[in-house]
Amino acid sequence: MIAADEEGTVAELGEFGLIAALSQWLPRDPRALVGIGDDAAVLAAPDGRVVATTDFLLEGRHFRRDWSGAGDVGHKAAARSLADVAAMGAEPTGLLVALAAPPDLPVSWARELAAGLAAECARAGASVIGGDTARASCVLLAVTGLGDLAGRDPVRRSGAAAGDLVAVAGPLGHAAAGLALLSAGLSRLPARAGLALPPAAAGLVAAHLRPAPPYPAGPEAARFGATAMIDISDGLLADLGHVAEASGVLIDVATDRLDPGEPLIAAARAIAGARRHDSLPRTDGGVTASSGDSPRAEALRWMLTGGEDHSLVATFGPGVARPADWTVIGEVRPGRGVLVDGREWAGPAGWDHFR
Amino acid sequence: MIAADEEGTVAELGEFGLIAALSQWLPRDPRALVGIGDDAAVLAAPDGRVVATTDFLLEGRHFRRDWSGAGDVGHKAAARSLADVAAMGAEPTGLLVALAAPPDLPVSWARELAAGLAAECARAGASVIGGDTARASCVLLAVTGLGDLAGRDPVRRSGAAAGDLVAVAGPLGHAAAGLALLSAGLSRLPARAGLALPPAAAGLVAAHLRPAPPYPAGPEAARFGATAMIDISDGLLADLGHVAEASGVLIDVATDRLDPGEPLIAAARAIAGARRHDSLPRTDGGVTASSGDSPRAEALRWMLTGGEDHSLVATFGPGVARPADWTVIGEVRPGRGVLVDGREWAGPAGWDHFR
Repeated sequence: MIAADEEGTVAELGEFGLIAALSQWLPRDPRALVGIGDDAAVLAAPDGRVVATTDFLLEGRHFRRDWSGAGDVGHKAAARSLADVAAMGAEPTGLLVALAAPPDLPVSWARELAAGLAAECARAGASVIGGDTARASCVLLAVTGLGDLAGRDPVRRSGAAAGDLVAVAGPLGHAAAGLALLSAGLSRLPARAGLALPPAAAGLVAAHLRPAPPYPAGPEAARFGATAMIDISDGLLADLGHVAEASGVLIDVATDRLDPGEPLIAAARAIAGARRHDSLPRTDGGVTASSGDSPRAEALRWMLTGGEDHSLVATFGPGVARPADWTVIGEVRPGRGVLVDGREWAGPAGWDHFR
Repeated sequence: MIAADEEGTVAELGEFGLIAALSQWLPRDPRALVGIGDDAAVLAAPDGRVVATTDFLLEGRHFRRDWSGAGDVGHKAAARSLADVAAMGAEPTGLLVALAAPPDLPVSWARELAAGLAAECARAGASVIGGDTARASCVLLAVTGLGDLAGRDPVRRSGAAAGDLVAVAGPLGHAAAGLALLSAGLSRLPARAGLALPPAAAGLVAAHLRPAPPYPAGPEAARFGATAMIDISDGLLADLGHVAEASGVLIDVATDRLDPGEPLIAAARAIAGARRHDSLPRTDGGVTASSGDSPRAEALRWMLTGGEDHSLVATFGPGVARPADWTVIGEVRPGRGVLVDGREWAGPAGWDHFR
């Protein structure tokens, strides 16, 4: 067995040394009948069907190594795929991780990545069962999440019907607010003179770096008969748009049902203050408000259009019981598309990777 | 439904247009209970276990767009993962494909990629069931292969025992010879003066661009009781090294059992001729012989150390029946490591991605 020298680089460790080290760092789960180190993993699939999804997490596109530590990247990579599994109503069971890295990547970075992957898998009830390594000029991850339906029907995007209520589990806009705080330079300690990160907003940067999807809410919604479900990765309105299109319905979101809460308001106020202080250029894409908006309007915009919280949004038939941790935010009507308070949303609804 | 304009770029089509187009281009399989276009796919896993493996295929690292057409890349990406599934003794059932691309990638390139993926999946009995798209500065693929064991035990790397025979299914060294021909400029038409690609070697470039793993040989070997198995992706000696290490045995390869055949000999002769003609610098890594070697020695070196054929090598107990399409090339003895004709192999045995 090769001992990983955590002072070195992955090139010094070599491909097979890195794989051996990863298999030591990552805990084993009895459902992984064959784990890391063979041609393929073998995972228990007791339902007789397997839920499977794959996602990239690319340096410079989905994360920055100066903002995200290796552990953060591990959490985010696992969350990205396992939230998709939960959004089908399935329980996450396994994760495959392909990692490409520059040869000078410190072994300690890979170890922290593995720790983040393992911790997020543990939150979801899954484990890392295999992967691949390659060389690249930056860090590239491709993660595949697998899950089990335990006899339930999968909850698809296409099942929403007029009369259903729309409900959400997990926070909205927290990751977007955290990204806006990072972009405004408001996350670093010691705080810049007069521009301290408000304590109420301190958790938002963490929400961007380490999204924490509400995994059990997915299978729970399926047990309660959710008619459609999706994980919020592109933004609430954009992802509801996928549900509306697949289901052939109109979804109307009621902003009086959306409570930004003190953290988002505090973050919006702090960013507005920083803009006045610095005349900061906009560097954060379309997810923050124009600087003339009120803090509440900016917070609402994060909730409606910010992606990457990996919260879940689902539709439930009218008059049926809903699980306690789901909050109604709108309704399904005949028609097509997504409205906010009965009107078209002005501005970008979310994220398109090629635009 | 968005119609894909094949004259345009993926940026013009947009992320969701590209996903919609891919779902139109790729044939559906009834085992894909939920296919492309939801948060995750749902695939039948009748065995109650699922075999799962993931692999990168990165432009500039695993393929060159000036050598490989999009269809070639699709074939190779699918083969890379599905051969790993077969090497466990499983039947390939599904493939997830994550594709990152520059925004100016032609839509026609994506369509040809999809056709190559679909054709190789069809060779293996599988289908593309889902994926992801992202933007990057070059083409990045991460493919996840899934498969079903149909009640059989998985064939691992760790089961070889002294007394077993070592056998191979599929060609050896063909992809390496094809790469050497490409590196020597011997593949393009019209041929350079006096340096035509010999007709016997014409299939080798195709073997590099579109490896064709012998998928049915994997489950067949499992049914015949193979004790260990691996797919040859890094090179025969390197991959046998993984089996020897995992099994705690010595494997001895007999070169008099390895018949290079006319194609490899012709390719080695042509490359030696091109080197004399051009004083070509070495640009092809460690997989070709030094120019002083005889054509047969160079051909043997490709067979022993060339990766990417994705043929299968397995061990079978002594005195048991073996399937007809497996050729014995060596034996397992007490000890550790891999020998060639009873001696240590001098020179690199294969490929380490970080070195």
